[in-house]
Amino acid sequence: MSGHSIDPTRLLGRLARLGAIGRDQEYWLVRLAASDADKLGRDQFVSWLEAAGLEVAIDRIGNIFGIWAPEGVSDKAPLMLGSHIDTVINAGIYDGCYGVLAGLEVIETLKQAGFSPARPLVVAAFTNEEGVRYAPDMMGSLVHAGGLDIETALDSIGTDGSRLGDELKRIGYASDREPGFLKPKAYIELHIEQGPILEREGISLGAVENLQGISWQKVTIDGDANHAGTTPISMRRDAGHAAARVITFLRQRARASDTPTVATVGCMAFEPNAINVIPSRATFTVDLRDPDEQRLREEEGALARFLDTLSAEEDVTISVERLARFEPVRFDAGIVTSIEAAARARGLPCRRMTSGAGHDAQMMARIAPAAMIFVPSKDGISHNPKEFTADADLVAGANILLDVVQALAGKE
Amino acid sequence: MSGHSIDPTRLLGRLARLGAIGRDQEYWLVRLAASDADKLGRDQFVSWLEAAGLEVAIDRIGNIFGIWAPEGVSDKAPLMLGSHIDTVINAGIYDGCYGVLAGLEVIETLKQAGFSPARPLVVAAFTNEEGVRYAPDMMGSLVHAGGLDIETALDSIGTDGSRLGDELKRIGYASDREPGFLKPKAYIELHIEQGPILEREGISLGAVENLQGISWQKVTIDGDANHAGTTPISMRRDAGHAAARVITFLRQRARASDTPTVATVGCMAFEPNAINVIPSRATFTVDLRDPDEQRLREEEGALARFLDTLSAEEDVTISVERLARFEPVRFDAGIVTSIEAAARARGLPCRRMTSGAGHDAQMMARIAPAAMIFVPSKDGISHNPKEFTADADLVAGANILLDVVQALAGKE
Repeated sequence: MSGHSIDPTRLLGRLARLGAIGRDQEYWLVRLAASDADKLGRDQFVSWLEAAGLEVAIDRIGNIFGIWAPEGVSDKAPLMLGSHIDTVINAGIYDGCYGVLAGLEVIETLKQAGFSPARPLVVAAFTNEEGVRYAPDMMGSLVHAGGLDIETALDSIGTDGSRLGDELKRIGYASDREPGFLKPKAYIELHIEQGPILEREGISLGAVENLQGISWQKVTIDGDANHAGTTPISMRRDAGHAAARVITFLRQRARASDTPTVATVGCMAFEPNAINVIPSRATFTVDLRDPDEQRLREEEGALARFLDTLSAEEDVTISVERLARFEPVRFDAGIVTSIEAAARARGLPCRRMTSGAGHDAQMMARIAPAAMIFVPSKDGISHNPKEFTADADLVAGANILLDVVQALAGKE
Repeated sequence: MSGHSIDPTRLLGRLARLGAIGRDQEYWLVRLAASDADKLGRDQFVSWLEAAGLEVAIDRIGNIFGIWAPEGVSDKAPLMLGSHIDTVINAGIYDGCYGVLAGLEVIETLKQAGFSPARPLVVAAFTNEEGVRYAPDMMGSLVHAGGLDIETALDSIGTDGSRLGDELKRIGYASDREPGFLKPKAYIELHIEQGPILEREGISLGAVENLQGISWQKVTIDGDANHAGTTPISMRRDAGHAAARVITFLRQRARASDTPTVATVGCMAFEPNAINVIPSRATFTVDLRDPDEQRLREEEGALARFLDTLSAEEDVTISVERLARFEPVRFDAGIVTSIEAAARARGLPCRRMTSGAGHDAQMMARIAPAAMIFVPSKDGISHNPKEFTADADLVAGANILLDVVQALAGKE
């Protein structure tokens, strides 16, 4: 390695400043995709790109790219670093933002150090990775990789009834550039683990070699609204009770198996949602994940079979809508090896691992060699204000990214 | 009996017209207490009272009274007929409105027939019987009976964050009259059964001799928001899963017992309510009812014990708030007997029964002899647009009320 290192103060300062943008009355961090708060975060990021002397490019889905294309190599396929800066509701400050700001930090460091890359370096902030307001998640990178038609994506209707295309225009992040205009030579994403493994094992770096598959479904159960006081239990068609049985079924099944499958019901709504009326409708989401495609299919099948039985037993109507489905992903072995090499060179413990969360890297892996670098998450907590990674780990991860970039983008 | 009968066309016409007031975009009938829609329904009712030549009186909680106090008897304690005209969300047209409009119909009929009562006749429409927007339900009659302090009632905060007192003022139904200014000699409420018994047995009238106890609680479960993909099942503190277990527990317990106890979870909310985040909080309501106070206490105790176990097993924090609690009520034997006598005189089959629902009559029973008359509900359905009672049954019920009023208010 050339001995370069990133500027810890600059990186950590930007993480803190971005994390202070988009706080609500309760000081919850909420920068949902294409919201007013997201616009404020984007504006801050773009101002940092400009200050670093990078070319700023925005595409039709609102993905933001900071490009350093030195003369002579500007025609080459770029090496892309990135992640996202949208958040969940009441989020932590690291998820996504760390990878984006570290990517900028690495490019800025190399630019100032007079490093001359064999290809352009790009930092990307992809739109709507979280998928909280608009489904599917990882939308910006999915569209960039050609996995989702841009018109369909722009027509997505949010949980608040808004249309993504209109919201992007409203906040000033809808441009004319066609998604995918930048085809990277390789893509690297630095991210917090969002899981407990690295911390538990006392290892500071993860070389992520694969990522588990994700299945998102929306289930709607229709029963019959009726008076809570006068309807005998035997005559009830209680959509709320049927929904509760789905949640307990998923948990019992996960507990009973020794597979890493995880199932989560995160959204739930009852109608008419009145104290003294039996719910006529329950609508909820099911998030299923497994690193093995075959097992993921088995879990989806088991849920479908249970819903059939439930429909008959509870005398309710059940409809299922697929919101998102991604197969497990295997990352590029070459990049994973160079991550391990960089860690070794800096004397940092590193282990290969599977990503439990979905990431933009899995979409970019469709069009270019890709891999991820993980740093520890305290108690494995994420999507929560308690999300935390020690400064030393944040800096170490960024330096490994710096080294890998030099290895992959150095003179050929 | 004097041979008087009510005017079917006038009664059924008013039921239909009131039922057309307060429809939303989806044509759902929604006249929540003290809402704009409720105001429209109240205005219509008041105009009918005035057209019938009754004195209109409104008290501080917004209860509406139509008073016929002929000279010479105006100082006597009145015979009161009534119910409510507020509705649940997506309601039927009969619940409450039938009793109020039949009360008006009976008084109007007797007035026009030159009947001379031994005491004033009053028809009452009590505020917020449903309790959907503001808790507790049956609030107007409870305040009238002195069971709830008027200031406390006016300070009730609704599901929409509004204050009842402000809303009553806004819609023009907050007056200076102190609640309870009218102490009735007796109270009679005509109502649809909202249950399946009369229809199933082919009986057109129910003489309601008692009413089951009601327990409303709000349960809040706090766990830990965390990433749906990376958090092992064993490390989860899932408030949504804990809430689902409460619902299935209540159902299994009700199914296992041979008592008439009914338990309903009608309201449910998850936080942060995102697809890929484990719920950190679940808030829901529990509605427990039983005609026997001892059994109702046992059910409340069983739920409390289950919540203790659940809190430990799921590693969640659980808090319970009491929203409403009413003991079972025994109605006045004399009035029940005269209802049966009136049915016999008109050759209509009648049975004694228990009310499964809460009604304003149970509050009025605290301060005066009270009873109820039930007519059949098709399929026992209520709190639903499919709520239906045949015109013949509606007319028969109103005529029985007419006869009972003559029997109780005739010259002494």
